[in-house]
Amino acid sequence: MAKEIKKIGVMTSGGDAPGMNAAIRSVVRTCAYHNIECIGIYRGYDGVIEGDYKPMNARSVKGIINKGGTILKSARSDVFRTVEGRKKAYNNLSKAGIDALVTIGGDGTFTGALIFSKEFNFPVIGIPGTIDNDIYGTSHTLGFDTALNTVVEAIDKIRDTASSHNRLFFIEVMGRDAGHIALNTGVGAGAEEILIPEEDLGLDRLLESLKRSKQSGKTSSIVVVAEGDKIGKNVFELRDYVEEHMSYYDVRVSVLGHIQRGGSPSCFDRVLASRMGVKAVESLLKGKSNYMVGLLNNKMELTPLKQAIKGKSTINLELLRVSDIMTT
Amino acid sequence: MAKEIKKIGVMTSGGDAPGMNAAIRSVVRTCAYHNIECIGIYRGYDGVIEGDYKPMNARSVKGIINKGGTILKSARSDVFRTVEGRKKAYNNLSKAGIDALVTIGGDGTFTGALIFSKEFNFPVIGIPGTIDNDIYGTSHTLGFDTALNTVVEAIDKIRDTASSHNRLFFIEVMGRDAGHIALNTGVGAGAEEILIPEEDLGLDRLLESLKRSKQSGKTSSIVVVAEGDKIGKNVFELRDYVEEHMSYYDVRVSVLGHIQRGGSPSCFDRVLASRMGVKAVESLLKGKSNYMVGLLNNKMELTPLKQAIKGKSTINLELLRVSDIMTT
Amino acid sequence: MAKEIKKIGVMTSGGDAPGMNAAIRSVVRTCAYHNIECIGIYRGYDGVIEGDYKPMNARSVKGIINKGGTILKSARSDVFRTVEGRKKAYNNLSKAGIDALVTIGGDGTFTGALIFSKEFNFPVIGIPGTIDNDIYGTSHTLGFDTALNTVVEAIDKIRDTASSHNRLFFIEVMGRDAGHIALNTGVGAGAEEILIPEEDLGLDRLLESLKRSKQSGKTSSIVVVAEGDKIGKNVFELRDYVEEHMSYYDVRVSVLGHIQRGGSPSCFDRVLASRMGVKAVESLLKGKSNYMVGLLNNKMELTPLKQAIKGKSTINLELLRVSDIMTT
Amino acid sequence: MAKEIKKIGVMTSGGDAPGMNAAIRSVVRTCAYHNIECIGIYRGYDGVIEGDYKPMNARSVKGIINKGGTILKSARSDVFRTVEGRKKAYNNLSKAGIDALVTIGGDGTFTGALIFSKEFNFPVIGIPGTIDNDIYGTSHTLGFDTALNTVVEAIDKIRDTASSHNRLFFIEVMGRDAGHIALNTGVGAGAEEILIPEEDLGLDRLLESLKRSKQSGKTSSIVVVAEGDKIGKNVFELRDYVEEHMSYYDVRVSVLGHIQRGGSPSCFDRVLASRMGVKAVESLLKGKSNYMVGLLNNKMELTPLKQAIKGKSTINLELLRVSDIMTT
Repeated sequence: MAKEIKKIGVMTSGGDAPGMNAAIRSVVRTCAYHNIECIGIYRGYDGVIEGDYKPMNARSVKGIINKGGTILKSARSDVFRTVEGRKKAYNNLSKAGIDALVTIGGDGTFTGALIFSKEFNFPVIGIPGTIDNDIYGTSHTLGFDTALNTVVEAIDKIRDTASSHNRLFFIEVMGRDAGHIALNTGVGAGAEEILIPEEDLGLDRLLESLKRSKQSGKTSSIVVVAEGDKIGKNVFELRDYVEEHMSYYDVRVSVLGHIQRGGSPSCFDRVLASRMGVKAVESLLKGKSNYMVGLLNNKMELTPLKQAIKGKSTINLELLRVSDIMTT
Repeated sequence: MAKEIKKIGVMTSGGDAPGMNAAIRSVVRTCAYHNIECIGIYRGYDGVIEGDYKPMNARSVKGIINKGGTILKSARSDVFRTVEGRKKAYNNLSKAGIDALVTIGGDGTFTGALIFSKEFNFPVIGIPGTIDNDIYGTSHTLGFDTALNTVVEAIDKIRDTASSHNRLFFIEVMGRDAGHIALNTGVGAGAEEILIPEEDLGLDRLLESLKRSKQSGKTSSIVVVAEGDKIGKNVFELRDYVEEHMSYYDVRVSVLGHIQRGGSPSCFDRVLASRMGVKAVESLLKGKSNYMVGLLNNKMELTPLKQAIKGKSTINLELLRVSDIMTT
Repeated sequence: MAKEIKKIGVMTSGGDAPGMNAAIRSVVRTCAYHNIECIGIYRGYDGVIEGDYKPMNARSVKGIINKGGTILKSARSDVFRTVEGRKKAYNNLSKAGIDALVTIGGDGTFTGALIFSKEFNFPVIGIPGTIDNDIYGTSHTLGFDTALNTVVEAIDKIRDTASSHNRLFFIEVMGRDAGHIALNTGVGAGAEEILIPEEDLGLDRLLESLKRSKQSGKTSSIVVVAEGDKIGKNVFELRDYVEEHMSYYDVRVSVLGHIQRGGSPSCFDRVLASRMGVKAVESLLKGKSNYMVGLLNNKMELTPLKQAIKGKSTINLELLRVSDIMTT
Repeated sequence: MAKEIKKIGVMTSGGDAPGMNAAIRSVVRTCAYHNIECIGIYRGYDGVIEGDYKPMNARSVKGIINKGGTILKSARSDVFRTVEGRKKAYNNLSKAGIDALVTIGGDGTFTGALIFSKEFNFPVIGIPGTIDNDIYGTSHTLGFDTALNTVVEAIDKIRDTASSHNRLFFIEVMGRDAGHIALNTGVGAGAEEILIPEEDLGLDRLLESLKRSKQSGKTSSIVVVAEGDKIGKNVFELRDYVEEHMSYYDVRVSVLGHIQRGGSPSCFDRVLASRMGVKAVESLLKGKSNYMVGLLNNKMELTPLKQAIKGKSTINLELLRVSDIMTT
C-alpha cells in the first residue's frame, strides 16, 4: 500500500512557459489547504539532485499568479540522466522527508520523472507546461494560450508595416516539431499561408499560392512558418528561394524568438494552472502516481505519463481547411 | 425539399463582442469559397427590416479579423418584435434575393431568429457572440475569452494600488445573470472572494471570509462581483455594508464597465470565430436551419436554436472550489 | 556647513503611481554607487514615524523597474500633520542614523516634507510621483505618461462599442483638480469633446457641439470628462442632462477609475524615474535640500519645494485648440 | 509674394512609423478646418510622380488615429532621385492643382523634398516620422515613443525566460546609425549593458562588465545592442565571441525586428502627431516652406529642412551614466 504523503516537492523543468508560476502557486496552496508541507525545488532536476530545496507556504507564492517565467527557475539536467544522479536525487529527497513530486514541464521532464519514479518507487505527478502544446493527454498545455496571443499581437504589428509597404513577410514561430502555434496563430492573424511540419505543402505549391494571392489583388502577405517546418532548410533560405522566383515581392523575415516564452499568462492559462495544481496534489494524496494531469473536454483528467510521452498530440486539421477557406 | 441557397445575409445583433468581425469575415469568405453571394446587413434586425444591405466579397472584410466591435453595427430592435416588422423584413430579404441568414448575437438575437424563421420558413443559423458566455450549446461564446483577458489585466493594475495602500477593492464585472466572467477572472486574478449569482454566499460569510483573510496576514484584498449578483443591492451598497462592519478596511469600488466589451480579440476568439463562420455557412448549404453552431469538446457542433435559448449554460462549480483552495 | 550624508531614507507617500518602483530602485542603486547606505521606509510618513525601516541594497530592488505600485507601500498620514508626530519621526530617523530623505509623491507629500525639513533642519529632496501631472517644476510627473496610455487604450476599447451601437459615451478620467489627463487623452483618443476644470465650456456649448457632431454625420461620440470638471455636478448628472435634451442619443457613462493608477510603467516613466532617482541622491550629496527634481526641457532640474507646491502646472491650451480643429 | 494655398497634398515616405496615420488625420482635418482642399498621395514619391492621388475630407480619416502603419502606404522611390522623375511629379501635382505638400518621413524623405522644392519653387513642410529619432530639430520623432514601449515590453518578456534559466541575452533593437532606441530601452528595461554606435565600449570592457555582473551575484543578464553598433560584426558574432570567452554563460540572441515598427501609437505619439499636423498645415498657410515641424521644449517649432537633414540628433549621454549607475 502507498505510504501516506505528508510532504510534497514541486519543481519546474525544461523550457519555461507562462502559467508555470500560477501552477506552482496552486500546488503550494493546495498543499496548505490539505495541511501538507510543500517544498520548492530550484533549477529543475539539478536542484533535486543537489538538495536545492526551500519550504513554501501560502504566503511564499503571493503575487506570482500573473508573472511569466518560474520563480523556481528551470534547467535541463544532464546529471539526472545518469543512475548516480538519480540515486543522489533520491537520497536528498529522502533526507528532506519529501514523499512525492509534482513536476511541471514538457516531455523531457516527464521522461526523467517516469524513470526516476520507477527506479525508486517514488510518487510523481506531472503538469504539462510548455508553449508548444505537443503533449498527449491534454487539449492545452500551460503557456500555449498565452503564446498564441503574444504571437498574434506581434503579427498584427508586423502587418502594419507589411501593408504599408506591400511586402511579403515570413514569420517564424516556435513549436519545436509541432505546428500548433503556427496553425492557430496563422488562422488568428489571417496569414495567407501557414507552413507546419505536419503537412508538407511543397515549395511549388507555396509559390503558386503566393502568385494567386498576388493576382487576387493582395498587395501584402504574411506567411507563418513553424520552426519545425522543413519546406526550406530554414526561413532565411525560404526567403531567398521566393525572392529568386517572385522578383516582384519585397520579402522580409521575422523570427519572433523568445518573446513567445514570456509574459503575463492569459486568464485561460492562469485558470488552467490553478486547476492543474489542485488536481496534481489531490491525485498524489489519493495514491496516484506516474500520471499527468490534463484538460480533456474541459475537465481535469489523468493520463499515464508513459502515454503522455509516447502519444502524439494531433494537429487539428480542420484548422488547415479553415485557413484555406479564409485565404481564397 | 429545401430551396438551393445562392445568397446569404450576415448580421450582428445585441451587445457587441470581440470576435464578431472575425466571424463576419469568416462568413463572407466561406461564401466566396463556395461561390455563394454574401450580403452584409447593417444594424441588426432594424437593418433587416429597412433593407440596409450591402454586397460583400472577400476584399470587403480585409483587415478586420483583429478589430473589436462590428463593422455591420449592432442594435436591439423593437420593431422586429412585431408581426408587421418581421413581415417587412421578409419582404425586403426576398426582394434582395437573400435565401438564408447567419445571425451573430446572444439569446435575444436567437429568439428573434427562431420566431422569424418559423413564420416564414426562412433558413437561419446562429453564431453565439456575447462576452457573457451564457448560451447553452457551446463551451465558449465569441468574445468571452477576450473579455476574461481584459478583466484580469484590469484587476492586475488595480491590485498594484490595492497592495500599495492595503485596500479592499470590490470590482464589478459584466456577465448579466451569469457568473462566468466573474468566476474565471476571480480565479485568474487571484481574487480573495468571488460573488456570483449562481451561488449565494451571504453577507455574513463574506464578512467572515474577509476577516479570515485579514487575520492570515493579507493586507489587501480583491473581491470580484458579478453584475448579476444580488448579495448587496449593488456593489456600492455592498461597500457601505462592509465599511460599516469592518472599519479597519479602506474599501474601494471599481466598475470595469464597457472596456470589457471591446478590444482586439484574443487568438482563441479569432480562431473560434473563423471556425464558426465556416460551420454556419456550410450548415446552411447542407440544408440545416434553426441551429446554433457551438464549440463542444473542441469540435464544431450544432444545437437547435430552441435548446440554445432555453437551455442554461451551467457554471463550472469546480472553479469555485479551486478559488476556495487558492485563498485559504 | 551641511553634515556629510552617509545614510539616505527613501519613501513613497500619497496615491501610488507607475514608476514609483523604478524611482525607488534608482535611489537605492545610486546610493550603492556612491557607497551610501540606503534605508527603505514603509507606508509613507506613518512608517517614518513608527520606524518601519529596512536596509536596502542593489539586490533589494531587483526586478521592480517594470512593476506598478510601490514595494514600500504608501499611505496618507494624519499623525504626521501633528508636531508630536513629526517629533517622533525625527527621533526615529536620528536613532536609525538616517541623514536625509528622498520622498516620492505629490503636493501633499511635499507639503509634509517641507514642514518637517524646516522644523528639524533635515535634508529632503522630493521626486514628483503622481499620475495627475499637477506639480509645478516638471513637465511630467512620474506615472503621467503611463496613465495616458492606459486611458487611451481603454477608450479605444470603448469606442469599439460606441461605434458599433451609435452611442454617446461620457468617460470620466482621473486628474483631481487638473485636466492634464483628460486633455491629452481626449486628443489622443480622438474624443469629440473634452471637459476640463481649467476651461468652462458650459452646458449649452456642449449640447451645441454634440448637435453639430451629429449633423456632420458622426454616429457615435466620445466625450472625455476630467473628474475635477464641474460642468455637471458629476458625470452621471451630465448624462441625464444630455439625454433629456438630446433624445436621439443613447448615452452611456464609463468611470475608468483605479486602472489608471496601476500597470507596468511606460518606457518614458521608467527612464524618467531612473534619472530622477540619480538626481535626487546626488543633489542631497551636494548639500541641497528642500528641492524637487523635475524634467524641464528634457533636462533634470531642481525647483524649490515651496514653489513646486504653490506653483501651478499650467495646462497646454494649444492642445484644446488642436482638439477643436480635429473635431470640426 | 507666395501664391495663396488652396490645395494641399499629404504623403508618407520611407519606413513606416506608428503615429503616421494620426499625422495624416491631423493634416486632413486642419485643412478642412481652414477650408483648404486636401489630397492624399499614395506610395510616397512614386505616387507623387504617378499621380496616385485621392481627395480626402474629415470623414476619410475617421478611426485611424490609433492605427499603426500608414493608410497612404509608403515606399522608397528611385525615380524621384532623377530629374525626369521630379519633373513628372511637378507636372502631375500642377495638373491636380496641388499647391503645397506635407511630407511625413525621415531624412531620406526630407532630402527629396528639399531638392524638389528648390527645383520647382514648390512649398513643402516636413513632419518627422521614424521610430529611430535620428532627426535634428525635434526632441521626438513620430513613432519613437511607441517603439520604446514595444521594445521594453518585449524585453520584459524575454527577461522572464532569462531569469528562469540564468541566461545572457543579446537583444538587437532598431535605430539605424543611432542609438536612441537602444539607450532608452536599455535604461527602461534595466539592461546590464547597452551597446550603441555613439559610444565604443570595446569588447574587452564588455567582457569585464559581464564578469563583474556575474560576480555580483546576477544570474541572468540582458544586453541591448543597437543595430548600428559595430562592437561585433553583428549580434550573432558577438554572441559567439562572448560564449568563447565566458563559457559559464548560456548566451542567446533575439533580434526584435519589425514588431518595433508597428502597433497602435502611444498617447504621446498621437498627441504629437496631432500637433505636428496642425503646425505643418498652418505653416504652409502662413507662406512657410522648406521647414520641418518639431517638438522643442514641449513647443511646436520650425527648423529649416536643410538643418534637419544635416544636423545630428545628439544622444543623451546622461542616460549612459544613469545606466552605469543602475547596473553597478
